[in-house]
Amino acid sequence: MVFSLKFTGRNIISIEDFSRKEINYILQVSRNMEPIASKGSDILKRKILATLFFEPSTRTRLSFEAAMLKLGGSTIGFADADITSVKKGENLSDTIRTIENYADIIALRHPLEGSAKLAAEFSRVPILNAGSGAEEHPTQALMDLYTIQKEKGRIDGLKIALVGDLRYGRTVHSLACALSLFDIELYLISPESLRMRKGVVDSIKNQVSITEDKNLDKIIPQIDVLYITRIQKERFPDPAEYSKVKGVYKIDLKTISSGKNDLILLHPLPRLDEIASEVDDTPQAKYFQQVWNGIVVRMALLFLVLGA
Amino acid sequence: MVFSLKFTGRNIISIEDFSRKEINYILQVSRNMEPIASKGSDILKRKILATLFFEPSTRTRLSFEAAMLKLGGSTIGFADADITSVKKGENLSDTIRTIENYADIIALRHPLEGSAKLAAEFSRVPILNAGSGAEEHPTQALMDLYTIQKEKGRIDGLKIALVGDLRYGRTVHSLACALSLFDIELYLISPESLRMRKGVVDSIKNQVSITEDKNLDKIIPQIDVLYITRIQKERFPDPAEYSKVKGVYKIDLKTISSGKNDLILLHPLPRLDEIASEVDDTPQAKYFQQVWNGIVVRMALLFLVLGA
Amino acid sequence: MVFSLKFTGRNIISIEDFSRKEINYILQVSRNMEPIASKGSDILKRKILATLFFEPSTRTRLSFEAAMLKLGGSTIGFADADITSVKKGENLSDTIRTIENYADIIALRHPLEGSAKLAAEFSRVPILNAGSGAEEHPTQALMDLYTIQKEKGRIDGLKIALVGDLRYGRTVHSLACALSLFDIELYLISPESLRMRKGVVDSIKNQVSITEDKNLDKIIPQIDVLYITRIQKERFPDPAEYSKVKGVYKIDLKTISSGKNDLILLHPLPRLDEIASEVDDTPQAKYFQQVWNGIVVRMALLFLVLGA
Repeated sequence: MVFSLKFTGRNIISIEDFSRKEINYILQVSRNMEPIASKGSDILKRKILATLFFEPSTRTRLSFEAAMLKLGGSTIGFADADITSVKKGENLSDTIRTIENYADIIALRHPLEGSAKLAAEFSRVPILNAGSGAEEHPTQALMDLYTIQKEKGRIDGLKIALVGDLRYGRTVHSLACALSLFDIELYLISPESLRMRKGVVDSIKNQVSITEDKNLDKIIPQIDVLYITRIQKERFPDPAEYSKVKGVYKIDLKTISSGKNDLILLHPLPRLDEIASEVDDTPQAKYFQQVWNGIVVRMALLFLVLGA
Repeated sequence: MVFSLKFTGRNIISIEDFSRKEINYILQVSRNMEPIASKGSDILKRKILATLFFEPSTRTRLSFEAAMLKLGGSTIGFADADITSVKKGENLSDTIRTIENYADIIALRHPLEGSAKLAAEFSRVPILNAGSGAEEHPTQALMDLYTIQKEKGRIDGLKIALVGDLRYGRTVHSLACALSLFDIELYLISPESLRMRKGVVDSIKNQVSITEDKNLDKIIPQIDVLYITRIQKERFPDPAEYSKVKGVYKIDLKTISSGKNDLILLHPLPRLDEIASEVDDTPQAKYFQQVWNGIVVRMALLFLVLGA
Repeated sequence: MVFSLKFTGRNIISIEDFSRKEINYILQVSRNMEPIASKGSDILKRKILATLFFEPSTRTRLSFEAAMLKLGGSTIGFADADITSVKKGENLSDTIRTIENYADIIALRHPLEGSAKLAAEFSRVPILNAGSGAEEHPTQALMDLYTIQKEKGRIDGLKIALVGDLRYGRTVHSLACALSLFDIELYLISPESLRMRKGVVDSIKNQVSITEDKNLDKIIPQIDVLYITRIQKERFPDPAEYSKVKGVYKIDLKTISSGKNDLILLHPLPRLDEIASEVDDTPQAKYFQQVWNGIVVRMALLFLVLGA
């Protein structure tokens, strides 16, 4: 019963807070947002979104802001950790209890795990987690799911590979959890040192079939969705560890041609050299469409949470 | 005669520029802004506020921006001293004569005393002083007055203590001047090295009864309003001086319980450890309500100065 | 035939892309924008401008943003090179293919020559070059032309001197090219080491009469328009070269009095000491009016390119 789902005033902290039914509802509302994303609207006129980015992420920040503007709302915020009251020693709960007076909803990006959850405990207005620590990035996971469903017509029944840095990359943790609600086969392809965290695997292994491997070439022919991530230098405690694994997976035209014709290739961006630019014009490449999908999914969340 | 008060096009530079009648009028208009602050409006549609923050202050900047958005206007600006034309050697008057072409009103934060006054001399559009040097912060003083009146129903007749750094903190200078227009008793509680500047005391001592003291505990039972400030490390010329006085006043549940039942506790925020978090949920704690009040007071000023 | 001119969806990369007829059309639309710049409008409601400033320029960025707001649109963007995805190694084409999903039009400022052209090749939405490398700054050139025409009633027949750094200053390159489409006499006044680049002179010398000289005093009495630039320390490879030429030209009341009564004095701002402040109040000084003209010209371009 779609109409019994309650999103008004809800915090969006972790993808794990959502049932399959709720995720399907968000994806359905996202589809309804497509024409509004093209034309704009006044649906959230007079509503204010605060984007509080204690860790810079231009891509995610502008996506939230564009989503709010396309719904007719407006935005305030800051773009990096250099927020002055924090430099003066203010804690997160005081910052939140200040900003909740300025805005109707807060998108929070913070380097510490648990920060979005903490913020939600103190806030009178809803918190949207725009990335916290290395663990959670729920809106990214939702836009990934939306992209898969939009491109493949379904999520159930697909063979989906997550490739690259599965240890430090926060998008793959949220995505793996979300995918575990669907009837899929999951392939986790990474170097030994970048395997998916045991906690994540343990929490989903009873719900989906999981194959872990180092070898990408071997599984390419079987899969329907290839989700590759950047190996993020900045998250490695040790540069030597980084240099051992950087560039270990590279997708080029040869990779693509060895896959199914209707394989789709996703990437959370920004990319380095994981995907050769020659791939950009193939029908398989869907990573820039994902950016658009991020707008419509975030519009859906703003719409639902603000009860418009 | 309220209707004879002229605010249209006026610069808001110093709290000392206002008569008691004018302050009362601003507080009255602020009250009228409360429902608009909740629901938003189109009153200042097509008006642009420029927030020029040569010194970062996220809290104050976002307060001005939210006030403008809630009135239906829009904003442009910069958030820190790193403004490029200044780095290229431009002086403040040229910057102002540029920005006045972009905006209908300018909120200026600048580290130098007298900067807002100078800007107003050059500007064709009204200047709102959002903090200049260590002296003036008129919108903060107005939101403090508004909070006192809203919470206590009046300002006259109250016993009000300003506590902490009375020397470097610019909010207490503006507030002390503003309070001197009312029939109050003023307590100035600070360490010897952080006493209120003699110039401020001299200018108001003929208008209000002033008690200066180091001891907070002694005066707590008598007062109606306790306004405590952060001792601002960044304003001390000498770190050794700072370490002598840091943490000298701390408000906890015991402090609160020794005061009147209807004592109210204010703080301009951000706080460090001047107020224990256990105090946050007491009815005396009004420092987060102050943040909201800052929005409505700034809305009132934008409304009045832009002649809407 | 004005109505056959097509601007919808067009990139604004270089002033050299425009015919004289097109420039005249832009200037005419700019004139129509004057009342809208004063009162605001809803013409571009629901349109989003992204200001991507990889090189900071507060003046130009806020001019584009104010122009968009005055047309009823809204803005997103970043103000300096510190954009995070670029720090993570992203190339410009990927950034553009991301932002084109967020915005209807992009104003791009970038330190590399050719960057705006490259961006336009990848972008589905129009690119407005807001300054690329040391070569191109087409919207500045258009606002200079607009100012000349507005103040003098015409461009044809005028004697126009470009003075100062003609080598590194990008505004004078674009302006010289634009002026070459008109029937003017051009004076290029600079120290030997800062002469106009040979490539620029060669490309226009068949179209306009050019006089190159070091001596400003000599030509002052003859000219109608004096366009002086800042000698930009930051563009000199060698500080010793800078110190040889800094302050070589200075305009004061004496300079002004030796010129024609209806001489006009322009400067792209920010200025250092090229123009004494005593000149600011003379009728000849038009450099702050130029700032306003920059708004109306950018409004005209947003209006034309977005096909409103």
